[in-house]
Amino acid sequence: MKPVTLKQIAETLGISITTVSKALKDYPDVSKKTKRLVKDLAETLNYKPNAFAVNLRTRESKTIGLIIPEVVHHFFSNVVKGIIAQAEKKGYLVIILQSNESYELEKKQINLLLSKQVDGILISIANGTADFSHLQTAMENDVPLVMFDKIAKIVNCSKIIIDDRKAAYTATKHLIDSGCKKIAHFRGPLMPQNSIDRFLGYKKAIEDHGMLYDSSLVYICEKVNFDEGKLFAQRLVKNHKDVDGIFINGDLVAVGAISALNELGVSIPDQISIVGFSNWFMSSAITPSLTTIDQPGYKMGKKAFKLLYKELKAKKRKQEILPQTVELETTLIKRNSTK
Amino acid sequence: MKPVTLKQIAETLGISITTVSKALKDYPDVSKKTKRLVKDLAETLNYKPNAFAVNLRTRESKTIGLIIPEVVHHFFSNVVKGIIAQAEKKGYLVIILQSNESYELEKKQINLLLSKQVDGILISIANGTADFSHLQTAMENDVPLVMFDKIAKIVNCSKIIIDDRKAAYTATKHLIDSGCKKIAHFRGPLMPQNSIDRFLGYKKAIEDHGMLYDSSLVYICEKVNFDEGKLFAQRLVKNHKDVDGIFINGDLVAVGAISALNELGVSIPDQISIVGFSNWFMSSAITPSLTTIDQPGYKMGKKAFKLLYKELKAKKRKQEILPQTVELETTLIKRNSTK
Repeated sequence: MKPVTLKQIAETLGISITTVSKALKDYPDVSKKTKRLVKDLAETLNYKPNAFAVNLRTRESKTIGLIIPEVVHHFFSNVVKGIIAQAEKKGYLVIILQSNESYELEKKQINLLLSKQVDGILISIANGTADFSHLQTAMENDVPLVMFDKIAKIVNCSKIIIDDRKAAYTATKHLIDSGCKKIAHFRGPLMPQNSIDRFLGYKKAIEDHGMLYDSSLVYICEKVNFDEGKLFAQRLVKNHKDVDGIFINGDLVAVGAISALNELGVSIPDQISIVGFSNWFMSSAITPSLTTIDQPGYKMGKKAFKLLYKELKAKKRKQEILPQTVELETTLIKRNSTK
Repeated sequence: MKPVTLKQIAETLGISITTVSKALKDYPDVSKKTKRLVKDLAETLNYKPNAFAVNLRTRESKTIGLIIPEVVHHFFSNVVKGIIAQAEKKGYLVIILQSNESYELEKKQINLLLSKQVDGILISIANGTADFSHLQTAMENDVPLVMFDKIAKIVNCSKIIIDDRKAAYTATKHLIDSGCKKIAHFRGPLMPQNSIDRFLGYKKAIEDHGMLYDSSLVYICEKVNFDEGKLFAQRLVKNHKDVDGIFINGDLVAVGAISALNELGVSIPDQISIVGFSNWFMSSAITPSLTTIDQPGYKMGKKAFKLLYKELKAKKRKQEILPQTVELETTLIKRNSTK
């Protein structure tokens, strides 16, 4: 079945296409009777306005682009859920792309979204991204852009973040308060801001509490996954027998560490206490359950779309867009992996 | 910065808009020199063709819609990953929507996608969906539709499935082969086909091996989550002390059950063996690790897009679309929750 056109409705009723179009849009210069006739027929024939023509007229696609590093990820899938829930409320659709933590792919995707004329872009940048001209291009093309979670401070757009440094400080301080004397850190890669900030929060907490910062106790996770957690926990136990606490960037890594320590017969939290980061669902289900920092993914997604929507409205009204940075609260969730 | 138009390029070079347009499209009746001039200027000014106008001309949006019941879900996020990877390869973008297992929402979303003139739709239907006229509407509007995982047999479209009945039979038979004499089943809701098929596979395996089917050993999960797994495991241990095996529809539920049995001091697999379904990432990380059926989510996503793409091409060539059903293989992954 071919979609019904305005022309067919006009011909069926013996009136002009303009009248049909005006009747559907409730123009005052069309009689009530004609409107009724047109609308009834349109409904009967399941008429749908041509979205492309509407787009061309309004210069709006009512579609936004979303680029995230990884789809199969508890935190990001919560963010996605928050974004599409909020976007749908406002009549926007969301095109989703995965950058795979690759700068090249991310750049290509930004260009693709621009060529598709999305109204706005939400992005959490890839670990590999150190040049930001593709994001500047979007903004110079008058396409509002909002960054969330993994951001670039240097780009002058709106951002939704958490205070990673403060959260990491809280996590490390909890280990100190519960009696740990030598605390290791499994950090994220060297590049993304949040991994740097979490490391700095850890370091500051150590130094603020009269402990010596020891770089040999810091392990760098490149993939931030289960296997790295397992591997580094095994190495740590072998090389630093007196470590009694670990602050780990990411619950997935922490679950790997717990699994390794369980296998090695190291008692958690009696011998080693562990604090994770993100409050992934499984953190409450493993044995022992994981003390962690709750990172509000769903809320971050909703808020990211809200900020973008505000900018889309400002743009329509030809108002200046003033970038703002919104910081969401994180919470320490105490469970059984710490004393 | 406003996007550059063909008109501006034409005015700058003192030639007609038609010539500019033809030059950009490499028409033979424009001189090489003019083409070079136009293309250089277009590149310098960062000219992008208006996607809406292109859409209107080609009647293609190069965008497809994807409706899934739940975004925060290991299996579905793998499917999403497979779909967007494959779609990107072919130059298609994916709009993602979450039905929340609600029929009403799913219906609204189908209409939304149709009004946005997506080229095709991929869907895994909601548990609440029992009427399929919204899907028929899509197909009657000449929009190819492919169902995956949670399908409706009655709808005459292409489908990607696994043989749930066979997989459940294999899972239950593994429990029988490893010595279990009384096997319970935590099933999914009454409605979706895959939950029915898994139940039937369990029942057939029981009956084929000279055991008595006992409906009091079948627990119905409505939400298919961790808490239900915990609750039903507690009830089972209390009411059926001689049960020595459970086949569970869903690893998340199985992890809940393992957690409850661990708490109750019931030894797995010595007292009760457990087999899950889907091979969720955490299944290998918990203690004991979970024997389960591997459900190939990423592969299913890729294959779903491939089938849809085939139909999009057939439609373009005005060839008839012959719906086909593709069945993907599942595998039993043996781990420590069974003997």
